[in-house]
Amino acid sequence: MKRISIKDVAKEAGVSASTVSYVLNDTPTESISEETRKRVIAAVQKLEYVPNLNARSLSSRHSNLIGVLIPQTEPGKEFMFSNPFYGELLSSIEYTARQNGYHLLLSGTQEDQCYLNIAQNRGVDGIIIVGTYPGENLNALKRAGVPIVLVDSYVKDPDFHTIGIEDKEGARMATRYLIEKGHRRIAFISGSIREYGVNIKRYQGYCDALKEAGLAVEESAVYSGTVDYEYGLAAAVLYAERGRKQTAAFVTADVISMGFVKGLTQQGIGVPDDISIVSFDDVYLANMAYPSLTTVHQDIGEKGRKAVELVLEAAKAKEHQHTECILPLHLVERDSVREWREPT
Amino acid sequence: MKRISIKDVAKEAGVSASTVSYVLNDTPTESISEETRKRVIAAVQKLEYVPNLNARSLSSRHSNLIGVLIPQTEPGKEFMFSNPFYGELLSSIEYTARQNGYHLLLSGTQEDQCYLNIAQNRGVDGIIIVGTYPGENLNALKRAGVPIVLVDSYVKDPDFHTIGIEDKEGARMATRYLIEKGHRRIAFISGSIREYGVNIKRYQGYCDALKEAGLAVEESAVYSGTVDYEYGLAAAVLYAERGRKQTAAFVTADVISMGFVKGLTQQGIGVPDDISIVSFDDVYLANMAYPSLTTVHQDIGEKGRKAVELVLEAAKAKEHQHTECILPLHLVERDSVREWREPT
Repeated sequence: MKRISIKDVAKEAGVSASTVSYVLNDTPTESISEETRKRVIAAVQKLEYVPNLNARSLSSRHSNLIGVLIPQTEPGKEFMFSNPFYGELLSSIEYTARQNGYHLLLSGTQEDQCYLNIAQNRGVDGIIIVGTYPGENLNALKRAGVPIVLVDSYVKDPDFHTIGIEDKEGARMATRYLIEKGHRRIAFISGSIREYGVNIKRYQGYCDALKEAGLAVEESAVYSGTVDYEYGLAAAVLYAERGRKQTAAFVTADVISMGFVKGLTQQGIGVPDDISIVSFDDVYLANMAYPSLTTVHQDIGEKGRKAVELVLEAAKAKEHQHTECILPLHLVERDSVREWREPT
Repeated sequence: MKRISIKDVAKEAGVSASTVSYVLNDTPTESISEETRKRVIAAVQKLEYVPNLNARSLSSRHSNLIGVLIPQTEPGKEFMFSNPFYGELLSSIEYTARQNGYHLLLSGTQEDQCYLNIAQNRGVDGIIIVGTYPGENLNALKRAGVPIVLVDSYVKDPDFHTIGIEDKEGARMATRYLIEKGHRRIAFISGSIREYGVNIKRYQGYCDALKEAGLAVEESAVYSGTVDYEYGLAAAVLYAERGRKQTAAFVTADVISMGFVKGLTQQGIGVPDDISIVSFDDVYLANMAYPSLTTVHQDIGEKGRKAVELVLEAAKAKEHQHTECILPLHLVERDSVREWREPT
């Protein structure tokens, strides 16, 4: 089926294509008679013509598109939503953008690709990047000349706006809670610990809490893999192989906890009877789990809303002003932790 | 005589072939100096170069954007990923599109909005629509003049390509499985049953299986709400209030099952001891659940891949050719069903 073009409208109205363009863009310099203007509008309505925004964005400079990049930490990995955190975050970003008349240009492009092309070719009004992202690619993105908001990244660069949470403090809170419940041997289970990422901060918070309580950080209590259900299953096997030495675990993502609990159950290890778990994120899964997960709650919906708001504010601002936004955390008590008394 | 190629023009003008291409296609993102542009045009005129229209239509008339609409069945509802089915489907769509050099223009726009604007404004190469969608809006979308693929819709219209599963047969399979396990009173729990949607087909399959076994369809055994975890919780309460009359349930989505199992557990009703459950979808949650869900498996990854492939094939095709694609289903046995013997 043929798309209605500006030429069709021009033909219908008996005017030139540029006259149609002048009318539609309210170009002030051109004197168009009221009668011609009406004829053009009538033709537009009759043909149900919708201007091509890609062409229009050349003049108005606004594409009403926000680029959203959820880079795959593992190249070639297909499912960006194997962690429901991303789905919840994207929902909130999409909803907020839509309420503001913006649409999302979504990409889960891998580390080895350069996003600059995407951003420049599509003329996005701003970019939201979720998670860690290679430094050289970030620098290349600056050339797109649009506001960039980094979500959950510890890259410090005044050119980027950031939105995140106090990962270190959240981890400290989780670990301290387990210590208060009487646990002395606490595992740390997380995705890969990388520079500028959230897990290194969470690891620091875990270590701080142990040290504050006079407890040693033991290497054999640290499990680091990938942020998914499968790694949780694998960590449970590893935990059993290593001799079940800890009575509690701080797990840095609910989705890992889900797998960990399942893997433990399969080996006859009970939660919280044999091992207590405090998790992180509070995705909707946390409450669905059996037992339901005690977890550090972060406001994922607010994270998405703020990310869009930051992009839109920055796009409208006359001057670049660096913004850093940190959202609060709190612990939600559910059924995955029990008090522990060391045998005397 | 040799046909004049773009390379000949480039040589004549002393520029690269891509520069010629940019000039001829008026590519908006590339900054070509006025002087270069004039040189290219002069070379084109001198050599009487005629662009290959077939080649052009492949490169220049493509935006490399695919519109993906996941309409909210409930207007104003924020989280389109409260059902992990959508996250898994979108992951597969995004991955397949990316492998083909396409990006996604994502929208979760509500029923009362018209998507025509989006599609025409952005010049997408095709549109994938997930789920049911109001007929008048679908008709409006035809005017965008690009291929449209409907996923999980029973709208019959040769202008749309469709991809789906045999919902009725899948439901029959699930219900028959419960009957074979000895169950005679089987509940049907689903989202809203609407015309052209999947749930009406699943309801028909459920009824067919009962009738084939000489069993009556009872109105009090039918639970219809929304496709989310919360409705599963609510259905469990309702099930208890209605007197726990069924020994089994066919639940049309894993995400509802998750809530249903949780709600039952909270009331001391055991799965599968007191009630058996066969679910639908086999999202990754199904295996995470406790007990893990016996469910009708559909290949969500393949659904997403096929949807993108259909769009791209149709975009390249010279003539519109209606395609209907139906993916197979099978039952995955896990831990949520037990044999039932009626007390004699």
